[in-house]
Amino acid sequence: MSEELPIGVFDSGVGGLTVVKEIQDRLPHESIIYLGDTARVPYGNKSPETIQEYAIEITRFLVKKKVKAVVVACNTATAYSLDRLRELFTIPLLGVIEPGVGAALEATRGGKIGIIGTVGTIQSQAYQKALLQAEPTLKIQALATPLLVPLVEEDWLDHPATDMILKEYLNRMIEEQIDTLVLGCTHYPLLKPRILSLVQDQIKLVDSAENMAIALEKTLRSHDLLNQSQALGKTQIYVTDFSPRFQVLAERFLKHPIGHLERISLES
Amino acid sequence: MSEELPIGVFDSGVGGLTVVKEIQDRLPHESIIYLGDTARVPYGNKSPETIQEYAIEITRFLVKKKVKAVVVACNTATAYSLDRLRELFTIPLLGVIEPGVGAALEATRGGKIGIIGTVGTIQSQAYQKALLQAEPTLKIQALATPLLVPLVEEDWLDHPATDMILKEYLNRMIEEQIDTLVLGCTHYPLLKPRILSLVQDQIKLVDSAENMAIALEKTLRSHDLLNQSQALGKTQIYVTDFSPRFQVLAERFLKHPIGHLERISLES
Repeated sequence: MSEELPIGVFDSGVGGLTVVKEIQDRLPHESIIYLGDTARVPYGNKSPETIQEYAIEITRFLVKKKVKAVVVACNTATAYSLDRLRELFTIPLLGVIEPGVGAALEATRGGKIGIIGTVGTIQSQAYQKALLQAEPTLKIQALATPLLVPLVEEDWLDHPATDMILKEYLNRMIEEQIDTLVLGCTHYPLLKPRILSLVQDQIKLVDSAENMAIALEKTLRSHDLLNQSQALGKTQIYVTDFSPRFQVLAERFLKHPIGHLERISLES
Repeated sequence: MSEELPIGVFDSGVGGLTVVKEIQDRLPHESIIYLGDTARVPYGNKSPETIQEYAIEITRFLVKKKVKAVVVACNTATAYSLDRLRELFTIPLLGVIEPGVGAALEATRGGKIGIIGTVGTIQSQAYQKALLQAEPTLKIQALATPLLVPLVEEDWLDHPATDMILKEYLNRMIEEQIDTLVLGCTHYPLLKPRILSLVQDQIKLVDSAENMAIALEKTLRSHDLLNQSQALGKTQIYVTDFSPRFQVLAERFLKHPIGHLERISLES
């Protein structure tokens, strides 16, 4: 039965595991095959053509593993490759941008939406375009915040320097009087408690990982692909290169030990 | 005449251009061919085998371009590939680690040496091993400082958060009473003024880029390969992927506009 097949999820590295965590929490009976393209991380500073090539290779790998749907858990890869992947593959394909955009449209009251993300995501204009396409009267402030990923990876979540950097970034948003902020990078959910304490109830936060899991549930239901088994799903993790820090970070992102971890080559 | 041939320099990205800048200042009549492997940056979180493969591909590219010597301007690539490159290629090959180690040995008075670098460089233990091999009684403190590269790339050189982060990192070194600090990453020379102001005259700084240029001059002289022409050398820059920020960062690192910039594929 195809509903028993796993869900494929990929990202350039470890970040997409925040999406896996949300899927595990929301859909505990689903199995997941995760591919972190750690040999080629980060995608944020690569060209659109290169990222598209990588995304096609990875989706082909996941399809060979017989997944029932593919989640592009990387903002940059979603921005540059989701349309192309949908042309090439027939299984349901979800990106992180649409769910975030939908949630932001629901959350905003004054129509002033901010987006933070990596340089690549912000420069791709993917969030900006999708928001304006849905609602052309929105006022949008987009800001690249490249220090946040290394702060998360350093585990300086409660460090005063993190607050100082977050304040600098968020003040630029507050000055523009945004009412809703999209966390447009899969690393950022780990900073959510700090961001919440800084913006208080002035600004609503939209967490892409969380909204991705909600969208996935809807898509699986509409395709009759939700796993009916009562057993807990399994998560298998593949990487394109072993890095000494992957496991440490992966367990921090998933908030539990990882089981199956295997290095693979995408050419094979 | 082989002395008129250019010098090949490579790094995983833009960082090695601090080495190019030092070579241009010290040896203005030399031409340089620089290869930034921007499609696969950063190397710091990749496995030794993967980095070795990349370094061999790039050195082959530079040798085809008829360079008279190759400078590995990347600490991680030096750590994992320099010995292998010297087995495979016959032209003079220099890495950034030996010159930094030599300068640290000359600078230290009390034999307590600190090293800061990326996670990859510190985990490779390359500086630590080379220092201890030269002088087994040294006391060495090595610290990965992964926030410094993005701070440089954000151009937050004078930002209070940079001082706060530098203080946190440097205090760990000061507590260990080091007398000499090796800047073991090609991005760090841009932070030298801030680091100097924080450590004052307590600690001597060893800048790998500067010492690399000194070592290159010695090597070229000993091989009779110094260019005797009185014309200024030219610098050609190749990248494996165009990234929108490369040019901005390159000009900041070189402190002047870049001339020839071309994307190449290493497989060709």
